[in-house]
Amino acid sequence: MEKSPQWEKLVLGGLVLTMEEDSEPIADGAIAIEKGKIAAVGPASDLLEKAPTCEVLDASHCIVMPGLVNTHSHLAMSLLRGLADDLPLKTWLEEHIWPAEAKVMNRETVALGTRLAAAEQLLAGVSTTTDMYFFADAVCEALVEAGLRGVIAESLIDASTPRCAGPDEMLEKQRELCLDWKDHPLITPSIAAHAPYTVGAPNLVREAEIAEEFGLPLQIHVAETRWEVETSLEKHKLTPVAYLESIGFLSDHIVAAHCVHLSPEDIEILAENKVGVSHNPVSNLKLASGLSPVEQMRAAGVRVGLGTDGAASNNTLDLLRDLQIATLLHKGTSGDPTALPARAVLEMATRVGADILGLGERIGRLKVGFDADIACFALNSAHSTPVYDPYSHMAFAARASDIRHTIVGGKIVVRDGELQTMDLEELLARSREVAAKIRG
Amino acid sequence: MEKSPQWEKLVLGGLVLTMEEDSEPIADGAIAIEKGKIAAVGPASDLLEKAPTCEVLDASHCIVMPGLVNTHSHLAMSLLRGLADDLPLKTWLEEHIWPAEAKVMNRETVALGTRLAAAEQLLAGVSTTTDMYFFADAVCEALVEAGLRGVIAESLIDASTPRCAGPDEMLEKQRELCLDWKDHPLITPSIAAHAPYTVGAPNLVREAEIAEEFGLPLQIHVAETRWEVETSLEKHKLTPVAYLESIGFLSDHIVAAHCVHLSPEDIEILAENKVGVSHNPVSNLKLASGLSPVEQMRAAGVRVGLGTDGAASNNTLDLLRDLQIATLLHKGTSGDPTALPARAVLEMATRVGADILGLGERIGRLKVGFDADIACFALNSAHSTPVYDPYSHMAFAARASDIRHTIVGGKIVVRDGELQTMDLEELLARSREVAAKIRG
Repeated sequence: MEKSPQWEKLVLGGLVLTMEEDSEPIADGAIAIEKGKIAAVGPASDLLEKAPTCEVLDASHCIVMPGLVNTHSHLAMSLLRGLADDLPLKTWLEEHIWPAEAKVMNRETVALGTRLAAAEQLLAGVSTTTDMYFFADAVCEALVEAGLRGVIAESLIDASTPRCAGPDEMLEKQRELCLDWKDHPLITPSIAAHAPYTVGAPNLVREAEIAEEFGLPLQIHVAETRWEVETSLEKHKLTPVAYLESIGFLSDHIVAAHCVHLSPEDIEILAENKVGVSHNPVSNLKLASGLSPVEQMRAAGVRVGLGTDGAASNNTLDLLRDLQIATLLHKGTSGDPTALPARAVLEMATRVGADILGLGERIGRLKVGFDADIACFALNSAHSTPVYDPYSHMAFAARASDIRHTIVGGKIVVRDGELQTMDLEELLARSREVAAKIRG
Repeated sequence: MEKSPQWEKLVLGGLVLTMEEDSEPIADGAIAIEKGKIAAVGPASDLLEKAPTCEVLDASHCIVMPGLVNTHSHLAMSLLRGLADDLPLKTWLEEHIWPAEAKVMNRETVALGTRLAAAEQLLAGVSTTTDMYFFADAVCEALVEAGLRGVIAESLIDASTPRCAGPDEMLEKQRELCLDWKDHPLITPSIAAHAPYTVGAPNLVREAEIAEEFGLPLQIHVAETRWEVETSLEKHKLTPVAYLESIGFLSDHIVAAHCVHLSPEDIEILAENKVGVSHNPVSNLKLASGLSPVEQMRAAGVRVGLGTDGAASNNTLDLLRDLQIATLLHKGTSGDPTALPARAVLEMATRVGADILGLGERIGRLKVGFDADIACFALNSAHSTPVYDPYSHMAFAARASDIRHTIVGGKIVVRDGELQTMDLEELLARSREVAAKIRG
C-alpha cells in the first residue's frame, strides 16, 4: 500500500489564488502543509484522496491566497493612532508625535504597541510586516509571540535617540540584531536609515556594507516630500535618489519607502540599481505628501510593493485598504481606468512585496516548498456577493474583516476570525492605558 | 409621583456624536426613542434615571452617531458587483453592464438586488439610501421589507427602456410614485433624470415641475465625465451646469450626482441655485472620471453630500469607505493635509446628505423630534484602539464591519451585527443564482 503523505494540515475548499504568474484560480482547491511549508496545492478532491486523515481547516466559501506583505511600517506607533490628524506634517510631528513618543515610548510600550500592531495585521490577513522603529529586539520578540512574520530594523539617525547615545552605538546594535536573529524562521533582521537628510553619507555607506555583508534588507524613507527633494537639490545638487546612488548606497537590498517625488531620471536609477520601492498610498494622501508615480516605476521595471506606514499616519495597518486605494487612486489621477489593475495591485501586496524584502523565494506565492503563509477571506456576506472575478473582488470589494483564517509558517494564528496567539482584550486594555497617559 | 416618560427604547452607553453644529461628544451617553423618534439625548445616568424600565440596547464601547446617508446609488446593480472592472467607461457600459441588465433585470431581480443592497448598507451603518433605477415601486417595497430609509426614483431617459415604452409613460409613472408613496414614514419618493445629454429640455422641465409640485428631490447625473462637458459645449455652447440653469431646471430640489468637471462659474451657479451635490469619490476614481472640486464647492457654499454610486462602479455600498477616501483624496491631491477634515467629511455623510435629500429636519442629526436613525460602531478591536478623537477615528480608522447596531425610524434593523429583517443566507443564495445566469 502506498504510504500516505506526512501532511499536518489541509486548508480545504475555497477559490485558491496562488499568485503565481499567469496562474488560473483553483476552484474548490486545497493546500497541504508540512513542517510549516506548503507541501501541495491543487484541487481539494486530489489532495483529500492523498491524505484523508490529516487536520482540516475549512476554507469553503473563501478566497484563499498568500498572506499580505506590508513593506513599510512603524509598528509601535499603533499606540499613537489618530492622536493628531488633519494637520501639516511639521505640526503633526513636532507638536504631537515626538512629544508623545518622548512621554511614553520605552522598551515595554514598544513591545505592547508592536503586539497591538501584530494583532491588527493578522486579523486583516497580513502575514508579513516590516518595522523600522526602536528596540528592535523587543519588536522581534513581540512578533514571535504574536506569530507574525517580520522584517525588523532599528532606525539610524545621526543623533542621539531614546535608545542610543549616537549613531556608532546604533550601528553596533544593528549588527547585533542581524547576528542574533538571522536564522530565525519568522524574523528577518534588517537594517534601516531614517532618511538621506538625517543620516550622513559615511553612516549610510556603513549601513549599505552591513546589508551587503549579511545579505539583508536595508529600509529607508526616500523622496517622501517636496521639501526633502528641494533640500537635497540645495545641499547636494542632486535629488535624494541621485544622491544615494552617488554615494554607492543603492542596491537590490534597499527598500525605499514612499518615493513620491521622483524625476524620470530617478526612476531609471531605481530600476538600474534594482531598488525595491514601498508604495504607501494612504499615508501619502493623509499627510498630503503627493502622488507616487507607481505606473511609471512599474513600466520602467522597478519592483513596487505596498506599505501602510505607521498607524499614526494611516490610521490603520489594513494593507487591503492601501491596496484598494492604490488601484483607485492611480486610475483616478491618471484618467486611465485600466491603470494598476486588480491583479497587479494584488501582486504588489504579495509576491512583489515579498521579493523586495528578499523573501521572494520563501513567501508571497502559494507554491510547493514555500513557507505556508496563507490568508482566507470569507465570501459569505452581502458586500462580497456576487463574485465574478476573485482578483477584482479583492481589489475593489473585500474587507479586512472578511478574514477567516491567517496562517503564518504553517501555524494557524487567526482561526474563524479569532486571534489564537494573544489575549486581545488584555492587549486593548493595556493599550488604552498608554493612550490615557499620552492624553493626560 | 412624577410620571415616567413613555420611552420605548434606550440606546445606552457609548460616545455619542450628535452631529449638531459645534456640539461636543457625549461620553457615556444615551438616546431615548419613542414612536420611532428621538425623545431625548444626554448622559446615560440622566436618561436611565428618567426611564429605569424601558428596553435597553447596549451601545457601550461604541461610537453612537446618526446613521449614514448615501445620496447616490443604483441599488439593484449590486447584482453586477465586479462584473467587469479595470475597463474604460464605454466598454464597461456597452459590452458588459447593458448586456447583463438586458439579460436578467426585471421586476423580480430588481427587488432582489435592492434587498441585497439594503442588507449591505444596513450592515455598514447606512440608514438612508437613494436609488435611481427601474421598477421604483418594487424598490420601495423591498426597502420597506428591509427597514432601510430610501429616497427612490425611476430614471427618465428620452428613449424606451426595459420598463417603459417612452418618456411620457415614465413621467406618468414618476407622478404615480410620488402620489403613492408621499406619506410613507420610510420612503421619500423622488424624481430622476438620467443626465442632461440623455433627456431633452422639454422633459427635464416637466420633471422640474413635478419636483416643485410635490416638493420632492430630483436626482440627476451632472458633469461626470470630460466627454459630457465637451459634448454639452459643442451642442449648447454651455457647460452641463450652465445649460441646466438656462432651461430653468436648477433649484434646491436637485441632487446632482458626481459634478466632477466644473468651472468656477458652474460652482457659482450651483451655489446660487442651492443645488445639492452628491460626491462619489470611489466611483469617480475607479472609472477614472476625475477629481471633483469638493473643497471649492464647499467654500462657495454648495451643499455637498456623499454617495457610493452603484456597486458595479464602486464595488461596494460602503459609504464609510467613500467618506474615508474622500478626506484622504482631497488632502492628497490638494497638497493640503488640513483639507476636508474628519468632522467635515462626517457631516457630509450625515447632516448635509440629509439636507440635500430634503430630509435635513428629519434625519442626519441626533436631535429630539428627529426620526431615530442611529448607527453604533463598536470600538473593541485592534484597529480601533486607541481612540483619541471620535471624528478622526470614524474618518481614518473605523470599518463598516465595526457596526454593532443600526436603527432606522426607531426599529433595530441590525442588532449585535446581525441583520434582523431579512434572511441573509437566502438573499445571498438567490443573488448568486442571478450571477450564474449572467455568467452563463
